[in-house]
Amino acid sequence: MSESIQSLKRSHYCGHLNKTHIGQKVTLMGWVNKRRDHGGVIFIDLRDREGIVQVVFNPEIGVELFGKAESVRNEYVLAVVGNVVPRPEGTVNPSLATGEIDVLVKDFRILNPAKTPPFYIADEVLVDETIRLKYRYLDLRRPEMQQALILRHKTVKAIRDYFSDHGFIEVETPMLTKSTPEGARDYLVPSRIHKGEFYALPQSPQIFKQLLMVSGLDKYFQVVRCFRDEDLRADRQPEFTQLDVEMSFVQRDDVLTIMEEMIAFIFQKTLGMEIKTPLPRLTYAEAMDRFGVDKPDMRFGLELVNVGEEVKNVEFKVFSQVLQNGGQVKGINAKGCAHYSRKDLDDLTKFVGIYGAKGLAYILLTEEGVKSPIAKFFKEEELAAIINKMQGEPGDLLLFVADEPAVVAASLGHLRLELARRLNLINPDEYNFLWVVDFPLLEYDKEEGRYVAMHHPFTSPVEEDIPLMETDPGKVRAQAYDMVLNGIEIGGGSIRIHRRAIQELMFKTLGFSKEEAQDKFGFLLDAFEYGVPPHGGIAFGIDRLIMLMAKKNTIRDVIAFPKTQSAMDLMTQAPSPVSPKQLKELHIKVNIPEKNSLNQG
Amino acid sequence: MSESIQSLKRSHYCGHLNKTHIGQKVTLMGWVNKRRDHGGVIFIDLRDREGIVQVVFNPEIGVELFGKAESVRNEYVLAVVGNVVPRPEGTVNPSLATGEIDVLVKDFRILNPAKTPPFYIADEVLVDETIRLKYRYLDLRRPEMQQALILRHKTVKAIRDYFSDHGFIEVETPMLTKSTPEGARDYLVPSRIHKGEFYALPQSPQIFKQLLMVSGLDKYFQVVRCFRDEDLRADRQPEFTQLDVEMSFVQRDDVLTIMEEMIAFIFQKTLGMEIKTPLPRLTYAEAMDRFGVDKPDMRFGLELVNVGEEVKNVEFKVFSQVLQNGGQVKGINAKGCAHYSRKDLDDLTKFVGIYGAKGLAYILLTEEGVKSPIAKFFKEEELAAIINKMQGEPGDLLLFVADEPAVVAASLGHLRLELARRLNLINPDEYNFLWVVDFPLLEYDKEEGRYVAMHHPFTSPVEEDIPLMETDPGKVRAQAYDMVLNGIEIGGGSIRIHRRAIQELMFKTLGFSKEEAQDKFGFLLDAFEYGVPPHGGIAFGIDRLIMLMAKKNTIRDVIAFPKTQSAMDLMTQAPSPVSPKQLKELHIKVNIPEKNSLNQG
Repeated sequence: MSESIQSLKRSHYCGHLNKTHIGQKVTLMGWVNKRRDHGGVIFIDLRDREGIVQVVFNPEIGVELFGKAESVRNEYVLAVVGNVVPRPEGTVNPSLATGEIDVLVKDFRILNPAKTPPFYIADEVLVDETIRLKYRYLDLRRPEMQQALILRHKTVKAIRDYFSDHGFIEVETPMLTKSTPEGARDYLVPSRIHKGEFYALPQSPQIFKQLLMVSGLDKYFQVVRCFRDEDLRADRQPEFTQLDVEMSFVQRDDVLTIMEEMIAFIFQKTLGMEIKTPLPRLTYAEAMDRFGVDKPDMRFGLELVNVGEEVKNVEFKVFSQVLQNGGQVKGINAKGCAHYSRKDLDDLTKFVGIYGAKGLAYILLTEEGVKSPIAKFFKEEELAAIINKMQGEPGDLLLFVADEPAVVAASLGHLRLELARRLNLINPDEYNFLWVVDFPLLEYDKEEGRYVAMHHPFTSPVEEDIPLMETDPGKVRAQAYDMVLNGIEIGGGSIRIHRRAIQELMFKTLGFSKEEAQDKFGFLLDAFEYGVPPHGGIAFGIDRLIMLMAKKNTIRDVIAFPKTQSAMDLMTQAPSPVSPKQLKELHIKVNIPEKNSLNQG
Repeated sequence: MSESIQSLKRSHYCGHLNKTHIGQKVTLMGWVNKRRDHGGVIFIDLRDREGIVQVVFNPEIGVELFGKAESVRNEYVLAVVGNVVPRPEGTVNPSLATGEIDVLVKDFRILNPAKTPPFYIADEVLVDETIRLKYRYLDLRRPEMQQALILRHKTVKAIRDYFSDHGFIEVETPMLTKSTPEGARDYLVPSRIHKGEFYALPQSPQIFKQLLMVSGLDKYFQVVRCFRDEDLRADRQPEFTQLDVEMSFVQRDDVLTIMEEMIAFIFQKTLGMEIKTPLPRLTYAEAMDRFGVDKPDMRFGLELVNVGEEVKNVEFKVFSQVLQNGGQVKGINAKGCAHYSRKDLDDLTKFVGIYGAKGLAYILLTEEGVKSPIAKFFKEEELAAIINKMQGEPGDLLLFVADEPAVVAASLGHLRLELARRLNLINPDEYNFLWVVDFPLLEYDKEEGRYVAMHHPFTSPVEEDIPLMETDPGKVRAQAYDMVLNGIEIGGGSIRIHRRAIQELMFKTLGFSKEEAQDKFGFLLDAFEYGVPPHGGIAFGIDRLIMLMAKKNTIRDVIAFPKTQSAMDLMTQAPSPVSPKQLKELHIKVNIPEKNSLNQG
C-alpha cells in the first residue's frame, strides 16, 4: 500500500528540528530508520538527508492511523504531520542533534513501503563492498556516504568559486576526441558515420587546453571527466575527475602561487582549516635524497641519511664495493627501536626485499652498547662516525641498505613509511602539503630502448638545460611540479613548450620521426606557428583530493557510482553484451579467439 | 626569433587600461591585432582576452628595438613595457574602451612570431565555417567567440550558484554505463577486460538521478555531458551538455517554481535582464490548438483560429467533408497582407505543402471587398461569420487549412512562423518564456505498432488518469512539462513514477514483456522495492540556452570545439583509424562489407 503525497508539502528537514521549533506544526518526509514500540506507543526515527528525528505515534491518533503505524517497517517512506514537543525529562538524547525534541504525530501517510533491505542502513554496520556496490542506492543512504558526497559537492563548488573569482574561464572540451598513442591506453568509441574509424575518450584535455591558450583565452580551468583503460591496480577508476588548469604569460611560480592559494581557500571553506602558504618546495633531487620518493610524506621524520662518506673505506665489503660501483649506502634511524627482536628484523629485511634490496644491515644501540652483526667490520672510530652521522642515541635502531641508488631509494623510502606505521608516527588529522619541483624532463625506458617523457611530451625543459637535450637528455630538468599531500601526489603540471622548434626537438628526443610527430600531433605543431603565448598549467585528481579530505581509504567511497577493480558497475551490470544490430551499425564485430585456437594454430 | 618571458610579469590586461592609468608604467602581453606605420612611428593594436589597446613605438627607443618593432607582423605575441599616456587631441577613439590612451613603448619582447593566419582575426570578417573549425584555435581569438565562451562560463557558474544556494548537491554520475535500448542510439565503448561486452555513453543520467533520490539525496543537480548517436539533422551535436535536476517529495508546481526562479536568476546575473515569474503556463492541448505546436513562439500573435463551427454546413465540400471525417478547418489572419500577389499565395501554398497540407484556402479582405476563389461557395452570412471569427478587417489576408488535426497543426504552425518572419513581427531582443504542461503520456507509433513514451518511460501519469492506462492509453495525461523560450524547447521534465506497480504497468503498456523489462531496467525495478520517495525533475539543454542568450544561430558558436554535421572534429580529425593492436586488445574487428558484396550476395 502506498499513499499519494498530494496536498502535503514538507515544512522542515528532519535533521534541522530543535528546541526552537517547539510548539510548531511541522510536515516531515523521510525514511524509517528504526521503529520501537514501548508502553503502547510507537517511536520511529525518521531519517532524511539532514539527519534523524524521533516521531511519536500515540494511540490517541485513532485506531486506523495507529494500525497503519503498526504496519510500518524499516525504510518505509513516510510523510508525517505533527507538533514539535520537548522530550520528557530523562529521555533527552545529547548525541542526537534533534535529541531534545519529539514530533507528536497528528497525521501521516505511507508514501511507499519497503522490503527489508539486504543490509541495515547505518554507518557502523560493516557490509561487504560487493553488496554495497550492487545496492549502491541503499549504501548511499548511509549518512557518512551522503556526507562524503556533500563534501565533494562543496569542495568542487569552492574550487569553481575560487577560479571564477580569479579571472579563469571554465571551458568544456570534447569527450569524443582523437586517439593519441603517447600515454596510457585509450577507451575507444566506434563511429557509425565514418566506417572503421574511432573516437577516443580523453585521458586529459591537455591538447585542448593548450590550444585554448593559443586562442588567447588566457586563464582556463575545468572540472572534467577523464578516462584511462589501465589495469586497475591500486586505487584507480577507469573514469576519474580532474581539475584542469592552464594559464598564459606565466612562469612557474605564478602557477604554484595561485594553486596553493586555491588549496588554502577550499580547505578553509569546506573544513574550516587553515593551510599555511606558501607551501614548502623541495627539489626532486632533495626529495629522492631525503625520503627516497618524489612524493614524501613529511608528517614525520625518519629521513634517509647518506653514510657514503663515513663507510667508503671500511673493511665491510658490502658497503665499500657498492660505493665503488657507483651505488649508495643510506640508513634510517628507527628511534627507540633497539628492542626489536630477531623476528622483527627479519620481517623488515623481507619487507625491503620486495623493493629489490638484497639485505638490510642493522645496528642496535642498546643500553648495554652496540649490538650488530656488522659491527666487527668497522674500526671504532668508523662506527662512531656512522652513529654520529645517523644521530644515533641509546635505544635507537639503525637500518642500512647498500645498493644502486634506485634500489636504495625504493627500499628505504618504503621502509620509512612502514616504520612510521609501526611506530604510530602519523597524525591522521594533519594535512601536510608540499611542492616537488625540478623533475627530470626525461627518463630512460630500458624496455622501449628510448627516453620517455617523465610528465608528458609538452613539458618545457628548464631554459638553461635546453642545450643538453641533444647531448645528455637524462640531465635535462623540466619546468614541472607536483603537489603532494600526506605522501600522495594530488596534482602535477608544468610550464609547457610554446615554441615549435623545441617541441620538435622534444619529439625527436622521444624517438618520433618527423612523420610520426606530424601524424600524431600535426594540428598542435601547426598551431605552434600562429603565435603561441608562453603558458603552463596543472591538473589535480579530484577523487584523491576528496578522499584525503574525507579521510577515506579508497576513492570509491567519494564516488557516487564507482566501478570495481575489474571496471564493472555492479549495480547496472555494465559493461554488458549489446545487440548484433548495434554492432552492425557501428561496423564492428566482436573478435574473441576460440579458447583452443592456440592449440590449433 | 622568439624571446623569453623571464623576469617580466604582466601588470594589466590590454582591455582594462583607461584614463585612470595615465602616468603608470605597465607591462602588457598579447597579440598584434594590427600594425600601422605613420610618420616614422609604429602603431600596434595589442589584443588580449579583455580587449585592445594601442601601443606606440617611437624611433627614440633605439635602432635595435625599433628595427625589431619593424619586423613585427599580425598575430605575433609581444610583451610590452611602456607608459600610459593620453592620446593627442583629435586622435581619441570613442568606439574603443581604451581609446583615450596610448601606451608609449619603452621596451618589448617578441615572445613568439606568427605565420600569416588563414583568415584575419576580427568579428566582422566572414569566413567559411569549415576553415573556422579546422583552425578553431584561431577562430576562438575573435572577440565575439571569446565573449560567447565567457557568457557560457558565467551562465553555468550562475546555475551552480543558484542550485548550491538552494540546497541541491551536484553529484557526478558515470560516463561508462549500460546500454539501454529505449531512446536514441547509444555510443558504445568496448571493454578490454570483459570480452565482447560494451559500455554505453549516457544519453542522460536519468536512471542514476532517480536512484540518487532512492538513496535520499533529496535534491540533486549536475551539469553533465550527454551523448546521442543520432543523425545530426538540424542543430545537434553528438555530445551535448545538459543541466540535470531531480528533487524528492515534490509535486509538479514545486519543480516549475524552482526552475523558473533559476532562469530569472541567471538572466539577471549574466545579462542584467528581469524575467517576470511565474512564467505563463499553457496546456499541451491549448498550445496545439492556438499555435499548432507544443513549443509556441509567443513573441507575436497570428494565432490559429478554429472555424469548424462556422463552416460545418457550407457548400464548400473541402471544408465540410474534412469536418465530417473528423478533421479540422483552421485559419490564420495575416494582418495587412491583403495586397499579397498570386505568386506570394502560391509560395505559401507550396510552403504548407511541405507539412502535408493539400491546399491553402484564402480570403483577401481588400478595400474593394472580399476577393477569394472560395467565396462563391459560402452564403453571405457564412462568409460574414468566418470573417468575424477571424477578426478580419479590410487589408487582412485570411488563410485556411482543412485536414486531419496533425496536418492542420503542422502546416499552420509553421505558416505562422513563416508569416511572422515575412512580416518582421519578431523582436530579437525579447526573451519570451512559458511552460507547456499536461502532455499526453503516450503516443501511438504506427511504424512500431505500439504506444511509445512521449517523454520517457519513467514519467508519471496524472493520478486520476491511471485507470485509463489499460483502457485508453492515448488519453492519459503525463505529469510532464517543457520550458519554451522563443519557440524553442530549452528544458523538459516530469514527476516520475515512484511505485513499482505503476512502473510495471508503464512497461507493459509500452509493449515490454516482464522479462524484457527486468532485463533492461531490472536494477531500477529492484530499487523500487526499497522505499522510493515521490520525486521529479527536469533537464535543460545548456548549449541551446546559451545559444539563445548569446543570440547565435547555431550551438556550434557556443561550444569551444564542436563537431560538424557529420560528427567530425575538423581540427583534430577525429574520428580516425586506430592501430590493429588497439582493436585486438578490445576484442573487436572492423566489419565493413565490401562495396560489391550486394551484387555478389
